Amino acid sequence: MTGAVPGPPTHFPPSRHDGASARGRRTADVATLVEQARAGQPRAVARLISLVEDASDRLPEVAAALAPHTGNAQIVGLTGSPGVGKSTTTTALVRAFRVRDLRVGVLAVDPSSPFSGGALLGDRVRMQDHATDDKVFIRSMASRGHLGGLAWATPQALRVLDAAGCDVILVETVGVGQAEVDIASSADTTIVLLAPGMGDGIQAAKAGILEIADLFVVNKADRDGADTTVRDLRSMLSLGGRHSEAGAWRPPILKTVASRGEGIDDVLDAITRHREWMQAHGELRRRRTARACAEIEAIAVRSLRERMGDVHGSASLPALAERVVAGQTDPYAAAAELVDSL
Amino acid sequence: MTGAVPGPPTHFPPSRHDGASARGRRTADVATLVEQARAGQPRAVARLISLVEDASDRLPEVAAALAPHTGNAQIVGLTGSPGVGKSTTTTALVRAFRVRDLRVGVLAVDPSSPFSGGALLGDRVRMQDHATDDKVFIRSMASRGHLGGLAWATPQALRVLDAAGCDVILVETVGVGQAEVDIASSADTTIVLLAPGMGDGIQAAKAGILEIADLFVVNKADRDGADTTVRDLRSMLSLGGRHSEAGAWRPPILKTVASRGEGIDDVLDAITRHREWMQAHGELRRRRTARACAEIEAIAVRSLRERMGDVHGSASLPALAERVVAGQTDPYAAAAELVDSL
Repeated sequence: MTGAVPGPPTHFPPSRHDGASARGRRTADVATLVEQARAGQPRAVARLISLVEDASDRLPEVAAALAPHTGNAQIVGLTGSPGVGKSTTTTALVRAFRVRDLRVGVLAVDPSSPFSGGALLGDRVRMQDHATDDKVFIRSMASRGHLGGLAWATPQALRVLDAAGCDVILVETVGVGQAEVDIASSADTTIVLLAPGMGDGIQAAKAGILEIADLFVVNKADRDGADTTVRDLRSMLSLGGRHSEAGAWRPPILKTVASRGEGIDDVLDAITRHREWMQAHGELRRRRTARACAEIEAIAVRSLRERMGDVHGSASLPALAERVVAGQTDPYAAAAELVDSL
Repeated sequence: MTGAVPGPPTHFPPSRHDGASARGRRTADVATLVEQARAGQPRAVARLISLVEDASDRLPEVAAALAPHTGNAQIVGLTGSPGVGKSTTTTALVRAFRVRDLRVGVLAVDPSSPFSGGALLGDRVRMQDHATDDKVFIRSMASRGHLGGLAWATPQALRVLDAAGCDVILVETVGVGQAEVDIASSADTTIVLLAPGMGDGIQAAKAGILEIADLFVVNKADRDGADTTVRDLRSMLSLGGRHSEAGAWRPPILKTVASRGEGIDDVLDAITRHREWMQAHGELRRRRTARACAEIEAIAVRSLRERMGDVHGSASLPALAERVVAGQTDPYAAAAELVDSL
């Protein structure tokens, strides 16, 4: 995390007069929005998500208002390399969930890369199938901000959709770099999407994707090489070992042709089975607790970093760094001095 | 950084009796080793580097003993994709520095990847040209430990070589993922190595390599496409804008055939010119101070994280996480509680 990432507010309380009334107004706004979101009003959902995206100083307030209404939605992460058909699959899954009368949220978290921007915009438009269905909330978080900022906003955006009564929330990321690891840490169930003939096998092994997948989906299964991809995956999984213990979840490998909706019901069934397995084995609670630990720790570290930046005088970071450069102290002694001055 | 990364020691002092004598012995050992390293004894240099690699709890002690003897070496980072000829170039640079009677250190920081391990071992062997020259210290940090651990050990390993009287230290990394960014933050001068026809142009632009390079070297310049690579780089640099201000350093683009030593003297001259420019513009001090800031902050954050792990009872991280999962509190309030309990 860099200094440019927006985070929680500083710890200075607002001035007694102006601050108190401003805070009163703000809290009222957020509370009203949360009530409206819980009643299923799409505009309130959208405004709350905008709030956590744009105004990082409102994150604590929004988080506090949402907390009592969260924990119901199953968060399903969907990741894979560009070109495997993530958005088509997401669209097909949304349709299938709606057939089962479930309320669905979609959060598309994409790096706002100039290389991928154009194509993704096209995908977004296709999603408008569901735009008039008020049981479906679709939100792209690609449009603004950098990935670092999104990392802070995403957990709260998920809580907004959760509080709004979504039964399932699909989180779609482009599987590039660290993104697929981050998504795994924010999802209850992680789907890794592959396509035939893209060299995804090796790719997957390198990116540690075998470790994070609860479900593999080989999309475009009508193309040559689909069976080879399935076979490669299967042999890599059998080498992995993680899934060989008794009672362990063995990630199924499913085939789909998402553009025609083929195989999508099987994916839904697998998602349901995975949730049931997690509940039966205490895994859902374990994952969510681990996630909350990581989130709390990141917020705490960020706030401590801010305090470090607020230290002035001889124990300030720049002053200590000057002394390290001059050979008058070493980084460990300097760090101890900095921590003591907090 | 994950929990598995070795870091500074916990803050519990050792027991008065055993601890004090053990600490006395250790300090004496390190002080002796530092003296021997300063006298140019290769075995002492090697043992100190092993110490910071293997025993993360000795890092503070070693750092303290080295601090007064550091700041003289110019740290030169060398990065580039696999296959551009990094190790050949390093070997050629070492030879040229020795001709100028400079004392040289080489630190090869490679991810210990099963994919690259074999080839790199071969490269290491080639370096043995210099193995009998006691003015050259060569150390591969690829052999053990993961990159996260190396991130902690590398700055101290650089200080060991610096204290041992090296005039120049070459830090070689495989330019994959984050590594090239890390190297830039630990070097005074960063050389980005390219080769013709590897699509490195686009690659470089994507990885932000244009931003970190102080020097570009197009190696294997006797191959087809070398001039195209130079031209592509030049036009990308002119688009960049960073270097257009008056007095700014304009990264030169040099051509080499490292395997035959061609162009290597020009690289040495450019390294010298870059150092002179940095000194004239206060940039050397600025870079080193920024580096020390980042290092101190990382150590301080790590130590605060450890303290967080030591909190017990209702304000412990697991207990707070359980309450977040249950919707009884939110991550921001939980983080505030955790920080207050430190």
